[in-house]
Amino acid sequence: MDIRRTKIADAIKMTTYDVTVNVKGWVRTKRGNKNVSFIALNDGSTINNIQIVADADKFSDELLKDVTTGACLSVTGTLVKSMGAGQSVEIQASEILIYGKADPNEYPLQKKGHSFEYLREIAHLRPRTNTFGAVFRIRHNMAMAIHSFFHQKGFYYFHTPIITASDCEGAGQMFQVTTKNLYDLKKDESGSIIYDDDFFGKMASLTVSGQLEGELGATALGAIYTFGPTFRAENSNTPRHLAEFWMIEPEMAFYDIKDNMDIAEEFIKYCVKWALDNCMEDLEFLNKMIDKTLIERLKSVIDCEFVRLPYTEGIKILEDAVAKGHKFEFPVFWGCDLASEHERFLVEQHFKRPVILTDYPKEIKAFYMKQNEDGKTVRAMDVLFPTIGEIIGGSEREENYDKLLKRIQELNIPMKDMWWYLDTRKFGSCPHSGFGLGFERLLLFVTGMQNIRDVIPFPRTPKTAEF
Amino acid sequence: MDIRRTKIADAIKMTTYDVTVNVKGWVRTKRGNKNVSFIALNDGSTINNIQIVADADKFSDELLKDVTTGACLSVTGTLVKSMGAGQSVEIQASEILIYGKADPNEYPLQKKGHSFEYLREIAHLRPRTNTFGAVFRIRHNMAMAIHSFFHQKGFYYFHTPIITASDCEGAGQMFQVTTKNLYDLKKDESGSIIYDDDFFGKMASLTVSGQLEGELGATALGAIYTFGPTFRAENSNTPRHLAEFWMIEPEMAFYDIKDNMDIAEEFIKYCVKWALDNCMEDLEFLNKMIDKTLIERLKSVIDCEFVRLPYTEGIKILEDAVAKGHKFEFPVFWGCDLASEHERFLVEQHFKRPVILTDYPKEIKAFYMKQNEDGKTVRAMDVLFPTIGEIIGGSEREENYDKLLKRIQELNIPMKDMWWYLDTRKFGSCPHSGFGLGFERLLLFVTGMQNIRDVIPFPRTPKTAEF
Repeated sequence: MDIRRTKIADAIKMTTYDVTVNVKGWVRTKRGNKNVSFIALNDGSTINNIQIVADADKFSDELLKDVTTGACLSVTGTLVKSMGAGQSVEIQASEILIYGKADPNEYPLQKKGHSFEYLREIAHLRPRTNTFGAVFRIRHNMAMAIHSFFHQKGFYYFHTPIITASDCEGAGQMFQVTTKNLYDLKKDESGSIIYDDDFFGKMASLTVSGQLEGELGATALGAIYTFGPTFRAENSNTPRHLAEFWMIEPEMAFYDIKDNMDIAEEFIKYCVKWALDNCMEDLEFLNKMIDKTLIERLKSVIDCEFVRLPYTEGIKILEDAVAKGHKFEFPVFWGCDLASEHERFLVEQHFKRPVILTDYPKEIKAFYMKQNEDGKTVRAMDVLFPTIGEIIGGSEREENYDKLLKRIQELNIPMKDMWWYLDTRKFGSCPHSGFGLGFERLLLFVTGMQNIRDVIPFPRTPKTAEF
Repeated sequence: MDIRRTKIADAIKMTTYDVTVNVKGWVRTKRGNKNVSFIALNDGSTINNIQIVADADKFSDELLKDVTTGACLSVTGTLVKSMGAGQSVEIQASEILIYGKADPNEYPLQKKGHSFEYLREIAHLRPRTNTFGAVFRIRHNMAMAIHSFFHQKGFYYFHTPIITASDCEGAGQMFQVTTKNLYDLKKDESGSIIYDDDFFGKMASLTVSGQLEGELGATALGAIYTFGPTFRAENSNTPRHLAEFWMIEPEMAFYDIKDNMDIAEEFIKYCVKWALDNCMEDLEFLNKMIDKTLIERLKSVIDCEFVRLPYTEGIKILEDAVAKGHKFEFPVFWGCDLASEHERFLVEQHFKRPVILTDYPKEIKAFYMKQNEDGKTVRAMDVLFPTIGEIIGGSEREENYDKLLKRIQELNIPMKDMWWYLDTRKFGSCPHSGFGLGFERLLLFVTGMQNIRDVIPFPRTPKTAEF
């Protein structure tokens, strides 16, 4: 019998009954009695299983014995209206083919719940669980939302390099990339390692940000965005840090800080709305199992206008709170880098909605941010979100060659690496802005998951690079 | 005057005349006389410039003197029907603001044509040229086509790791990734470098393919695709090789080799059609300037059915050609790995359309490909294209645990790195297939560009990692 496979996502929505269908997938559970077996089959196309009804008189004990959790089946049968609770259709099986068994004594994913810690150790199998299936389907959808948003706005997806020979941002420790034979490192007279014979003829690293190259794209194509892997060799074993993560960095010529805030707010609402519009079944599962306030929180974000507030005002609110007895772990003063507890106080307790904080002290922000006329602050903007704090960081960029150069010199950033970046201010400079979004931060917010290692298929962290 | 900017792509299509508009962009050329200047302005939103008409009596010589190639302007004026040839509308300027000058004595992109070799040296500015603007807009569109195609087919975008501690594919030399202090390399008694103190606690490299991890995704989510950077540390200084390039690797549970060929053909036609439907102005430019047969070739691909031919048949055709006097540089015999000249002979001279070659000798293909019953060939498929040869390589995967294990042992692939891959065949194994497409190979085909360094913004090649 050669019937084209129907995806389970489609099969469970069928309303034409008594037709013959074929589904393929993995067994989630099997229950029943000596007369009939009920098999819950899942193929990853949806969080929902389809129920297969296998009558004992049609199938041998031998075959049914191998239908265990994790086994892979091809099932042909009649799609019928289900009498049972929890599903509208089921398949009365006429033919079951076992593609691959899963020995119950060995298969690590039995039906009982496993801890996320344990599942990280078997990250090669965890996409087969309900939770990670949901998370990775949402991950896909958020990527689609991002590309769709920027495409319809006329932005171009711009691939900035992963391997870089410049260390401009200096945002934390970098990974070195080399083809040198570490058993035979040539050194010069002063004892310095010679890189002439390395692949790129110089020391090279993995990128920490595509922004600077993104600005090259924006000042030619008008508006671009990056979406690619980014690396930090920080020895941080926290639920918020990955050594390898994905970043989205839009960069727009002719956008000032106001335009930048407008598009950042529109962008993040678009993504969250996409999730609500396209991933409701997965969100409902996560809302039930992971975070009971998830859907409500997602809805609240798309329905409200974000607060826009200068840093200086934000500090006043925090100082007032301290004066009234609120205890923070870290001190609050003008010039301090806000901790997550400060950001969350503003968002969750004071304003009760997302906040875009602007005009930060220049000392705590990057060299390329546009300097305000007060001489003290820069046109930075951080978008602060409930539960996670900063989700987006951005700024208008300093487009004045002299001011930028002065800041680079003040901060002792190596000029030899910066000539191409400075050229954008030397030739046809323009006002421009951009921001960065950590993709996994967005996913923490949208899925309600607590640990960043659980929203990326194969997390890289200190001492961990499995699979 | 605060008029919202209109993108030049939109402005040149306007049919409402005598309205005030604002455009911003970079000067491509300025010509004219003492009474009037004609400025061609481009903002990257389109390959077309908008013509700005600046009457000498409205603007000072001082200002117009700074309107040179590369300068960045904001122009407000009246959109009028153009009397000149080559454009339908132009802007009668009432206000010109110079955001950034571009000193004609220093700006590297004057209006005369530059060689692609020279432009690679100033890759930070080359997106401002017509050719690279067109190429990078098409690059964006091809990425969109890829995501759209797979999304509508129900595939999930799956991020496989960039940093890996396993070297399974062994496809050429890998880049090592380390945070070790190379001046103080600890070694054990036998003189081997100790990696316990490296970031991941073991030797790590940049990925050469996401396929194996992609199979983990497919055997859980049903169908996935990767689209990410991939690395080869081959010392190949050719127009076809990059050390850092982007790959697309779809992987599908329950697809056999026939399904795999079907979707590969549909996919590549979809991408080429997307280019024809969405990038015609850029394609017309490239067709005129780079390759006069480009558009015709793109159309020919979407209109024909690809040939499907076993390798063994292909060899016969090539041997026949040799017998009839055709000279190849490399020898042809059953078992040989086809050279580009062989592939192109089949495609361009023999069949005159794309060819999908299947069932290759197992010795020249990867260990994971499904073995045919003849014991000699595997269910590989390569999609061969005019001008570029192999554009897609794929196969049905060996889903039989014992056969796969035997092949791994025959090839001495380190087992300790493969346990997680073998688990997919141990637990709920299923027939599955996949393929890989080099993104820049696709772009060479779609743009008609000759050198792979000219279809990626910042090429990484031996001795080159600028910007």
